Amino acid sequence: MSVLVVGSVAIDSVETPFGKDPDAIGGSALHFSAAAKTYSPIHVVGVAGEDFPWDKIEFLKKHGVDLDGLTTEAGKTFRWGGRYHKNMNRRDTLFTDLNVFENFQPVIPDHYKDDKYVFLANIQPQLQHDVLDQMNSPELVVLDTMNLWINNTRESLMDLIKRIDILIVNDEELFDLTGKHSLFKGADEILAMGPKAIVVKKGEHGAVLIDKHGLFLAPAYPVENVMDPTGAGDSFAGGFLGYLAREKDLDKMTLRRGIVHGAVVASFIVEDFSFNRLRDLTQQEIDHRVEALRGFTSF
Amino acid sequence: MSVLVVGSVAIDSVETPFGKDPDAIGGSALHFSAAAKTYSPIHVVGVAGEDFPWDKIEFLKKHGVDLDGLTTEAGKTFRWGGRYHKNMNRRDTLFTDLNVFENFQPVIPDHYKDDKYVFLANIQPQLQHDVLDQMNSPELVVLDTMNLWINNTRESLMDLIKRIDILIVNDEELFDLTGKHSLFKGADEILAMGPKAIVVKKGEHGAVLIDKHGLFLAPAYPVENVMDPTGAGDSFAGGFLGYLAREKDLDKMTLRRGIVHGAVVASFIVEDFSFNRLRDLTQQEIDHRVEALRGFTSF
Repeated sequence: MSVLVVGSVAIDSVETPFGKDPDAIGGSALHFSAAAKTYSPIHVVGVAGEDFPWDKIEFLKKHGVDLDGLTTEAGKTFRWGGRYHKNMNRRDTLFTDLNVFENFQPVIPDHYKDDKYVFLANIQPQLQHDVLDQMNSPELVVLDTMNLWINNTRESLMDLIKRIDILIVNDEELFDLTGKHSLFKGADEILAMGPKAIVVKKGEHGAVLIDKHGLFLAPAYPVENVMDPTGAGDSFAGGFLGYLAREKDLDKMTLRRGIVHGAVVASFIVEDFSFNRLRDLTQQEIDHRVEALRGFTSF
Repeated sequence: MSVLVVGSVAIDSVETPFGKDPDAIGGSALHFSAAAKTYSPIHVVGVAGEDFPWDKIEFLKKHGVDLDGLTTEAGKTFRWGGRYHKNMNRRDTLFTDLNVFENFQPVIPDHYKDDKYVFLANIQPQLQHDVLDQMNSPELVVLDTMNLWINNTRESLMDLIKRIDILIVNDEELFDLTGKHSLFKGADEILAMGPKAIVVKKGEHGAVLIDKHGLFLAPAYPVENVMDPTGAGDSFAGGFLGYLAREKDLDKMTLRRGIVHGAVVASFIVEDFSFNRLRDLTQQEIDHRVEALRGFTSF
């Protein structure tokens, strides 16, 4: 089953304690696609500038990612620059040049409109509404967002949350959204607005899935050498939705395994810059870490 | 099988965002005992002052905790004062009055000397050596320590680590001990010194057990309302050692379940000030949360 992702296409300048890449291909739509490609066919909507090096994402096409929804506009590609601290949970944004992304208006190609699984990567909520307006009857809409939208376009975001099925946030975003310090109280508030589930990402500490079945405490796969955390969240979403679309099921254990697959794919992307580690990653390598995690957590 | 604990006896002045208790009975030896009492007979060695309100730990005796090794010295009981931040992972120490604890010289009563399970709670490493020197042939020695000893009495602590079986630390202590930012590299260094296992506590994010069997990623039991985190670490150790002593086994799965029992007992102690929540806590309540955790983590 195909998964639609709508998000950013970027060239990132990334500096971490272990190296730097001034031209790392990135953006939520591409990180997601690179992560989900071994699971399901992916449909991508985004915008690149005239300077975008298309050869660097040729591998996505080879793995069955449909890039028909990626347009090129006059001007430069979105550029983000960031520097990670020694504790890589912290980073400074050095610059954000929106370039062609500033006027991004997602247009869903006709052959994407029947997609049942949709990932609304982190963009302005009004654009995320526009995407949903163009879709015929999606069955599972997963939403990512950020503090900028929570604080500046709150109303639009709150209306959007009523239209989606699963919200993915981190602790801080959940607090900004709900004003609740307790993860459980915050999650209850979101679930009361309509979504079937909420996933709270905790980075190296794993993730928590809260839905009508209760709690799932997902571990993170322990990575010995984190090189670059950029894209971890989007690749988590890619593994999660890719898995769900492949399994064509949304029951309790499938959702849980989806979270674990997301965590495992994220554990690979951070081992190198950009999505380099995902280029030739096989389903077998992923499944191997999923089984290892099962071993690390059984008691 | 009896467990020996040697540690502090204190009266704490604790302030958290949810209340305060100016005379909370505490100290590692008592938190440990209150946590371990439903599992195994406990032997306690420590020192109290003349002001110590013995009636407040009468419940320990009723639960089979042997307090013969608790002496009373002329002077006041050790007093610690602390204030927790809104984010209760952070606290400020307001005062530390060692009082009778300053000249504590642990004397192990004869009928404790054959104990096979020993918890060396956080005191000066030389005193922990003295305890081991008095024991006949302990089978499992578990060590807790703190940054003060890591930085000020490093040599004595390093020699001690060679004599013990399991070291319990947090991330920061492991870094101070080994200089390694990576949990795995730090743990390897400790294991090379002799211990069979290391437990790295991560508070609300659980704990990691590393031994020859590899990794165990233990979840924390999710607590909705944390009232006072004081004693969480010592009660974790109490549940862990109490369980191991009861099971009389140290195989892979027993160690893992011990960690989970420790995490669960810790999830109770933080729900109230001092060890109040543990006073009448039953094994059934503990086992219920252990099973709940199994449900929260299966996939």
